[in-house]
Amino acid sequence: MNDNIAVIELTAATLRFLDQTRLPAEAVMVETTDHRVMLDAIRRLQVRGAPLIGIAAAYGVTIAARERLSETGGDDASFQSALLTVCDAFAATRPTAVNLFWALARMREIIARPLSPEMLTTELEREARAIHADDALRCGAIGRHGAEIIPAGAGVITHCNSGALATGGDGTAFAVLLEAHRQGKNIHVYADETRPLLQGARLTMWELQRNRIPATLITDSTAAMLMRQGRVLVAITGADRIAANGDAANKIGTYGLAVAARHHGIPFYIAAPFSTVDLSLPTGESIPIEERSGEEITRIRDIALAPDGSDTYAPAFDVTPAELITGIVTERGIITPPYTETLRSLHP
Amino acid sequence: MNDNIAVIELTAATLRFLDQTRLPAEAVMVETTDHRVMLDAIRRLQVRGAPLIGIAAAYGVTIAARERLSETGGDDASFQSALLTVCDAFAATRPTAVNLFWALARMREIIARPLSPEMLTTELEREARAIHADDALRCGAIGRHGAEIIPAGAGVITHCNSGALATGGDGTAFAVLLEAHRQGKNIHVYADETRPLLQGARLTMWELQRNRIPATLITDSTAAMLMRQGRVLVAITGADRIAANGDAANKIGTYGLAVAARHHGIPFYIAAPFSTVDLSLPTGESIPIEERSGEEITRIRDIALAPDGSDTYAPAFDVTPAELITGIVTERGIITPPYTETLRSLHP
Repeated sequence: MNDNIAVIELTAATLRFLDQTRLPAEAVMVETTDHRVMLDAIRRLQVRGAPLIGIAAAYGVTIAARERLSETGGDDASFQSALLTVCDAFAATRPTAVNLFWALARMREIIARPLSPEMLTTELEREARAIHADDALRCGAIGRHGAEIIPAGAGVITHCNSGALATGGDGTAFAVLLEAHRQGKNIHVYADETRPLLQGARLTMWELQRNRIPATLITDSTAAMLMRQGRVLVAITGADRIAANGDAANKIGTYGLAVAARHHGIPFYIAAPFSTVDLSLPTGESIPIEERSGEEITRIRDIALAPDGSDTYAPAFDVTPAELITGIVTERGIITPPYTETLRSLHP
Repeated sequence: MNDNIAVIELTAATLRFLDQTRLPAEAVMVETTDHRVMLDAIRRLQVRGAPLIGIAAAYGVTIAARERLSETGGDDASFQSALLTVCDAFAATRPTAVNLFWALARMREIIARPLSPEMLTTELEREARAIHADDALRCGAIGRHGAEIIPAGAGVITHCNSGALATGGDGTAFAVLLEAHRQGKNIHVYADETRPLLQGARLTMWELQRNRIPATLITDSTAAMLMRQGRVLVAITGADRIAANGDAANKIGTYGLAVAARHHGIPFYIAAPFSTVDLSLPTGESIPIEERSGEEITRIRDIALAPDGSDTYAPAFDVTPAELITGIVTERGIITPPYTETLRSLHP
């Protein structure tokens, strides 16, 4: 962020994070020593964004270690198994973003070391901070690589939020917009509001405003019309999981945006670090898609938007097939089709 | 409607209409003798839907005649010019739906007759009632013709509201769904919520529920995913204006839905009476598109959905080019491409 609001921060005493459900009305920091608060925050999308929930889970495991250490004073034969259970709890919060499982795998490797509870706690904190710092570096690299695909003066459309509020740094797709803006490319961003939870309206517009990037908010269903009008030259979004063949899961509506881009001959890019790539899944068909409560569609706070008893279908994500993706902007450069070989060879 | 709620009704004393902005929370009838209340209701979308605003304007001119007649007692040399000014005011409420101008043209023809204020008032009332009754008949015919395109057991997607709340009868696209349901075709409707004003969630779901048609509410951007999953076999919407070549303006998001339908090989239909067809416009490019206040996107009641000062683009409609339209369901049958000759030859 270009200001003093930390999205997530581990201090010597507590874990602090920005409650994103309160934005844009207010920027409220939550401060806790209880890893269950972090679990709940991830479930309730107070903290969201594929890279960020990986970081949040790593910090959550860290404060769980601190809790346990302070309770037991270090004399604790089941320290490791208890922390593995905490990892399981974080893994069960949200199913789609693979960064969560990737970060937890790193934490589990630490937990498996034959160290004392005190030393493990120190190591877990170090690892969580490394995951965070590492993501910030990846964001920077994604921004620099991705800025190349943004023509000067271009209208660029994005969906959901992929900025500082979704990552450990400047973002993924958002970092590309930010870098193009910083390079003086005079871009104009069109932000899809991103129903039902309005991450585009609430979060992306907030970040665009804070970074003084010229931007216009639209409803999701206005994107196709904008493309037909020639006001958009590039579409770019983040991703929650990328399969080995390049199929990419991202916020519901991304697929429709990619279909519209293809219809209008507009390039459609995904921007994501390699922590989002899941080589264990051959295609996007096997990516688990989280289904959310229908109330996310039928209510806003206490206002009913639909009749009581309305049946709903509320997937949080959809999958954009690789054939609709012009390129994947990663921290190691821009990958173009066919994706399978390149993703495999660049994967760490 | 299958119940006792009148959407709009002229009684001997007043004009009554359902305030659609209060749905689904409450079904509030507004009763007035003041045509300016009707003007405001159309502007504020308390009464909306292309055919219905034509009917509402016709009734509005009728109560304006009653007002004037009761004020002047019939001794009124400027009765006709005053009513033409009222017609102008109704014509200025909303620019896109041509049914409004079509209905007002019928009222203006009556006003031009060399009759006394009292006789003109009677004739205007008769004409307004004829416009209403005529639309109800058209709805029925559209339903019967359109039901043929709905396969048994089909998932059908629609956008916005095109039912009894939008017309003088059972609706346009909605009448097709209703008739297919009544024929026992066992259909399942997917209703786009239709941001920003949520006519799909608030109004179409309400009508589907009242008619006991199995239905699921989705966000607009979920439509493409549903199509990819094979859960939708037909897409059908109403229209606000159809140009001579078949290009059709309808609620924002209709174009994106048509693009997605084409991508998935799903037929996309428009259903509308001939009062929606404007042969004076060669293509959809000349259809005036109403732009609404950005607050329709950035706020729901007193809840801010985006940061203060967010720039917005809020067109109320988009235009779907004829080449994406599989057929136009009218009261005279289903018209298929090329549209120009058939629209011209069937137009009354």
